Amino acid sequence: MKKRFLITSIIALSSYASASLVDDAKKAGFTPIPTDIKALMKLVDNPKNSLNKAKVELGKALFFEPRLSKSNLISCNTCHNLATGGVDGVEAAVGHKWTANPHHLNSPTVYNAVFMEKQFWDGREPDLEAQAQGPMQAAPEMAISKEMAVKRISSMSGYKEQFKNAFNDDNITFKKIADAIGAFERTLVTPSRFDKFLHGDKKALSKEEQEGLKTFIAKGCVSCHTGVGIGGGMQKFPLVKPYKYAKVGDFKGDKNGMVKTPTLRNITQTAPYFHNGAVWSLEEAVKIMGETQLGMELNDADTKSIVTFLKSLDGEMPNITYPHLPAVTATTPKPEMK
Amino acid sequence: MKKRFLITSIIALSSYASASLVDDAKKAGFTPIPTDIKALMKLVDNPKNSLNKAKVELGKALFFEPRLSKSNLISCNTCHNLATGGVDGVEAAVGHKWTANPHHLNSPTVYNAVFMEKQFWDGREPDLEAQAQGPMQAAPEMAISKEMAVKRISSMSGYKEQFKNAFNDDNITFKKIADAIGAFERTLVTPSRFDKFLHGDKKALSKEEQEGLKTFIAKGCVSCHTGVGIGGGMQKFPLVKPYKYAKVGDFKGDKNGMVKTPTLRNITQTAPYFHNGAVWSLEEAVKIMGETQLGMELNDADTKSIVTFLKSLDGEMPNITYPHLPAVTATTPKPEMK
Repeated sequence: MKKRFLITSIIALSSYASASLVDDAKKAGFTPIPTDIKALMKLVDNPKNSLNKAKVELGKALFFEPRLSKSNLISCNTCHNLATGGVDGVEAAVGHKWTANPHHLNSPTVYNAVFMEKQFWDGREPDLEAQAQGPMQAAPEMAISKEMAVKRISSMSGYKEQFKNAFNDDNITFKKIADAIGAFERTLVTPSRFDKFLHGDKKALSKEEQEGLKTFIAKGCVSCHTGVGIGGGMQKFPLVKPYKYAKVGDFKGDKNGMVKTPTLRNITQTAPYFHNGAVWSLEEAVKIMGETQLGMELNDADTKSIVTFLKSLDGEMPNITYPHLPAVTATTPKPEMK
Repeated sequence: MKKRFLITSIIALSSYASASLVDDAKKAGFTPIPTDIKALMKLVDNPKNSLNKAKVELGKALFFEPRLSKSNLISCNTCHNLATGGVDGVEAAVGHKWTANPHHLNSPTVYNAVFMEKQFWDGREPDLEAQAQGPMQAAPEMAISKEMAVKRISSMSGYKEQFKNAFNDDNITFKKIADAIGAFERTLVTPSRFDKFLHGDKKALSKEEQEGLKTFIAKGCVSCHTGVGIGGGMQKFPLVKPYKYAKVGDFKGDKNGMVKTPTLRNITQTAPYFHNGAVWSLEEAVKIMGETQLGMELNDADTKSIVTFLKSLDGEMPNITYPHLPAVTATTPKPEMK
């Protein structure tokens, strides 16, 4: 990480000398979302859970499936609401029995989560398929057991055929449920004007946004917020100075204090910010990042400039047809509210 | 009501003598959902809140809008989930702070609710627009004040223009929020095979379903479950014999003990049944109705026959594109979890 930080800092310092801001951005590590569908599919695919249309469609149904929670009331979409930037718009996630996340953890967006190098704030899972298994079972989230999840889904007519089409095998398992959800989530990418810019369309960003990009690179934000995910690696947090909104009981990162860098794609839509959702203002979030991670006080002009650039990361949202899910049957385990 | 009951009973008794089951069904009071779009629009329109495309689209956004709840977590769709038959699949509705409905009231489906003569289980509101104002404000449901709802919606960019397009006036009021939601809900109709049958397509129902329809008419179910809503009027409940799953604290109907007759459209998808959601089996629900409302013990064959007919009421669900809602701004009132 230190090496990466150093390299990008050198790039940042030298960037004003370069002829092309597009080249500078690429040198700084940004990669656009491919426009070519085959290249995109290759980028988002998981060889251990290869994408197909039936699996994505099944995964969408399961993503919106409230019967995958103990209560019948909570789906993946409750906390990762695809209508509101893939998040829930509250500080700490709230789940079964209105329980707030015990470590004050804010729900990260599911849009572009495929581009994160690891999953969860502490990066404990390698991919979306592994991630999806967690919240279903977690007591303060969906609170369902693997067994009950499989029983619920197996009991409803229609799902069996969908699993057969998706996996070429109609045996419904918890792993397959999570794999289908992961497959759907892999399709939730949102190409933005910044991607167009990286593809060479210089008019895709306004002058002010281009200035913002320069500031973003020059100040060193790009040392963590880079790649196709504009984030997604692991970094120490706080790195230089303390985080002023730390709360008692807060999440502390993995065993080395490393925290996953959130994506900045659609950042205007994913407030409140930080692992504990304590900050609602994007300007304030940028200033705090300057302090905690870069050890610098960003002035109002630089902050504004960076935020102007960040707005260009608002992406084109996928068109999602709301699913119609199968009815419960006599053998479907009943909801449990307690 | 007594008169209506008598008339339909006479029709029921004489129905086997009729040449055409379609005619018998019409005589019994069934009306199909019009296939002609103009006739349908006229049927579902509210002259005080006339439908237009922009209003329906805005209403859809607001129906899925979790920022219309105090917590940011509950939308109309939470209890009237359009993915699961327009209901939540739990016995009593659960809302803010995981509060169960204090009168054990089960969430009725929003699909075809436009055809109900009145709204709410006690019929206290005349239409969907008036209904929509209730759950937003109710403490055990979305728990938001009119003022906070208006502030939240007004603070998010994009809504102002949508209100202007919908109402030809960009002043956002609580009434307009509810009116837009009502307009969207008016479009949630689900034509079924039974409607095709009523339109004259005799092959739309199988022989067994036609037998079921005869039983449904002959036994007198049609005395309440009739009209285009196949329900929707007010009736005393229980009428003849006690309801065996009555709970302490149960809802008791309006001041005269009258309860709104639920629609039977999509009844296979809206378990659990009755005002207190105590019954999960459709067969059992039919038998209980025989007892409490008609004072008769329906045998297994008749029950099965009626249920076979009821399955033909599963309708074609509308194609709903999941909305992408605007982001909160600095002036948006924050969620309150308590």
